[in-house]
Amino acid sequence: MATAGVMEALSALKEGRFVLVYDADGREEETDMVVASEHVTAGTIRTLRKDAGGLICTTADPKIQESLGLPFLTELFLGMGSSYPVMKELIPNDIPYDAKSAFGITINHRKTFTGITDNDRALTISEFSKLAKEAIRQEDGWGKREFGKNFRAPGHIHLLNTSKSILETRFGHTELATALVIMAGMVPSATVCEMMGDDGNALSREKAKAYAKAHGLVFLTGADVVSAWKEFRKG
Amino acid sequence: MATAGVMEALSALKEGRFVLVYDADGREEETDMVVASEHVTAGTIRTLRKDAGGLICTTADPKIQESLGLPFLTELFLGMGSSYPVMKELIPNDIPYDAKSAFGITINHRKTFTGITDNDRALTISEFSKLAKEAIRQEDGWGKREFGKNFRAPGHIHLLNTSKSILETRFGHTELATALVIMAGMVPSATVCEMMGDDGNALSREKAKAYAKAHGLVFLTGADVVSAWKEFRKG
Repeated sequence: MATAGVMEALSALKEGRFVLVYDADGREEETDMVVASEHVTAGTIRTLRKDAGGLICTTADPKIQESLGLPFLTELFLGMGSSYPVMKELIPNDIPYDAKSAFGITINHRKTFTGITDNDRALTISEFSKLAKEAIRQEDGWGKREFGKNFRAPGHIHLLNTSKSILETRFGHTELATALVIMAGMVPSATVCEMMGDDGNALSREKAKAYAKAHGLVFLTGADVVSAWKEFRKG
Repeated sequence: MATAGVMEALSALKEGRFVLVYDADGREEETDMVVASEHVTAGTIRTLRKDAGGLICTTADPKIQESLGLPFLTELFLGMGSSYPVMKELIPNDIPYDAKSAFGITINHRKTFTGITDNDRALTISEFSKLAKEAIRQEDGWGKREFGKNFRAPGHIHLLNTSKSILETRFGHTELATALVIMAGMVPSATVCEMMGDDGNALSREKAKAYAKAHGLVFLTGADVVSAWKEFRKG
């Protein structure tokens, strides 16, 4: 059953607040700040770059991936191996913490200017979320056409594609954060950023917990999310 | 002739210090923090993410691009248009400040763990710089083979490819920063990050200048660099 922590996290996400998610001992051992993409503002981006410090990325569940035609970056890179042989040499077959990278393409909304400012990144993410919401409902390639009309690639927001079966084969922040917004009944896209420490490493679990406490945020582990997700899928 | 400011900037880069470069009124109107890639440490990355806040990117001049076989991201994205038609729709034909994006592939050194920590990003950049230095001197595809042995893609460091003729057709931070490290006689790769303001926009030119003054850093404009570069190429 969903713990009180998970229930509290879902309420926080619905209200546009951050939730902190630590994946697991023995995996990345990293804490990501997580927010629902539909609530991202310039203030959200400012907090992510100042307090987290990693890459600001936006997830897409399998429905969004299908309706917008989103490839994995690895597919594009390896697919171009005959024109650019070095792309085959760079094959990511030795990721230490998982079998596969979640990296999708990078995008900018066409109304952004440089694409990197807090205003621009917030515009890209919030418009992506709006488009995704509608694209899931539409048919006949509507999503892909509208995606191209409104966004360009490459850009400054990294998309992350969840694995096909969320939290069955891969248990990364991409899947954990996306499962949370789905359980909250929101657009199935979360925006995430890894929390960095000042010692050169990821922020330690204890320090991330202390940050959550100081800012009144929920702190979850991957196991909390997986357990709630299993119940949610049954129900 | 190179101004005193440019001469001072070249000394700073040789010593591993930051230089601030504002491109131009009417272009991006952004200031990037610039450092020579060969001097990047975990402390460099920490300062870039905390004080600049944009994307941390590493440039490659045409010699590095050729010796490592580095494509532009746009070439890979459009090249996969028949398998992923949406990639054609997302064509970046409306960048407001330039004709072409400098984005190359993203990489991680194979010895990184998650790839995103200050230690990991510093390792990727400093090892990229070491490899580039040697690859430029070698022949027979040595660089491409060693690149693939030691790096994987996608990753957490964005490579930026300069235009073929540096500062003749394109005058972006990619070209400005790379011209500076070339004039300093260093490995032709710079690491750059856009400075963000707390109002949602890029840090204003005046505030960037104030940051430079407070931290004892040289502040240059694109015009300063272009003028010195023209003399350098003649000489």
